[in-house]
Amino acid sequence: MPFVNIRLTGGDEAPTREQKAELIKGVTDLLVRVLNKNPANLVVIIDEIEKDNYGIGGVTITELRKKSS
Amino acid sequence: MPFVNIRLTGGDEAPTREQKAELIKGVTDLLVRVLNKNPANLVVIIDEIEKDNYGIGGVTITELRKKSS
Amino acid sequence: MPFVNIRLTGGDEAPTREQKAELIKGVTDLLVRVLNKNPANLVVIIDEIEKDNYGIGGVTITELRKKSS
Amino acid sequence: MPFVNIRLTGGDEAPTREQKAELIKGVTDLLVRVLNKNPANLVVIIDEIEKDNYGIGGVTITELRKKSS
Amino acid sequence: MPFVNIRLTGGDEAPTREQKAELIKGVTDLLVRVLNKNPANLVVIIDEIEKDNYGIGGVTITELRKKSS
Amino acid sequence: MPFVNIRLTGGDEAPTREQKAELIKGVTDLLVRVLNKNPANLVVIIDEIEKDNYGIGGVTITELRKKSS
Repeated sequence: MPFVNIRLTGGDEAPTREQKAELIKGVTDLLVRVLNKNPANLVVIIDEIEKDNYGIGGVTITELRKKSS
Repeated sequence: MPFVNIRLTGGDEAPTREQKAELIKGVTDLLVRVLNKNPANLVVIIDEIEKDNYGIGGVTITELRKKSS
Repeated sequence: MPFVNIRLTGGDEAPTREQKAELIKGVTDLLVRVLNKNPANLVVIIDEIEKDNYGIGGVTITELRKKSS
Repeated sequence: MPFVNIRLTGGDEAPTREQKAELIKGVTDLLVRVLNKNPANLVVIIDEIEKDNYGIGGVTITELRKKSS
Repeated sequence: MPFVNIRLTGGDEAPTREQKAELIKGVTDLLVRVLNKNPANLVVIIDEIEKDNYGIGGVTITELRKKSS
Repeated sequence: MPFVNIRLTGGDEAPTREQKAELIKGVTDLLVRVLNKNPANLVVIIDEIEKDNYGIGGVTITELRKKSS
């Protein structure tokens, strides 16, 4: 029954359809295994965030990727 | 004054502009009626989620729709 | 199937158990009526926020209530 | 680097400290494995929600538990 | 280490890349200054919301902009 | 008019009432300055998260604090 929201970078870093299905399956299995939750109502939402809109340490991911490349 | 976030499937299941306006009006009226809240600062945000990004019971909505069709 | 999050002030402004049940019922009915959604998986979460932790216009609700009393 | 938010029922249904640590570890490992993400900045937040504040299908968890007991 | 989510109108009201970088830098500096937080893991996510999907006082921003123009 | 949510550790790391007021004022001023937003409807909510419920890099803050002390 829990609700899970996963927020990660999209665009050219977006997960594939298969990876998203695997994340949804994996996090559901984890909650069932650890907490014995009923999976029936367990909701997972994945948000893909543009790299200009995601910041770590005061810098956008766009900038971080430039520095590390 | 409350804040409300409604997250639902988008794409070919997305609500129309009229339906979104009706949801925003309806949830605002509900909070005013039940809690006597001032509607002036009552904020509602609707997020439309791709069916690949929304999972229930460990399966994406994309897969669920295939099974039920 | 949608997910709804309602965030409002708690403490001495918290809704009663009956009001919370009425909000959950009301917002579910609204989504069923406007969007014809299946209510079975429709999740609503209410968060009660302390007045020191909720700001409007740059001022906490704690301060706003003092000014208006 | 992703951000994950897990929202589940608290109170007498709250996970133990060990279970919460296991969830945080498990979801981090999942994202590293599936998406090859750097775990260093991967943030997980667990919110425990009162059963009066969590609704499914228009009914609070408090009510659902009564019916199923 | 805190997590910050900023939700604002997108489309023709969307902030520029430079403004988004400035917001991310600004809110990070604020949290470092006021709370002495380590900026290294401080995450900021900006969500741009369509004007049809954002309501204030029961009315969408789309409608509000028409009235005020 | 934007909505801002700040999530940080509570308990013995919780900000004081004055710090929370300063954060709310500061983030509101930032959005007004950078984006020229109307502060009237600008909402800020601060969530204080228990250290057992907040994880970075797969480890709870509770564990991280032990290691660094």
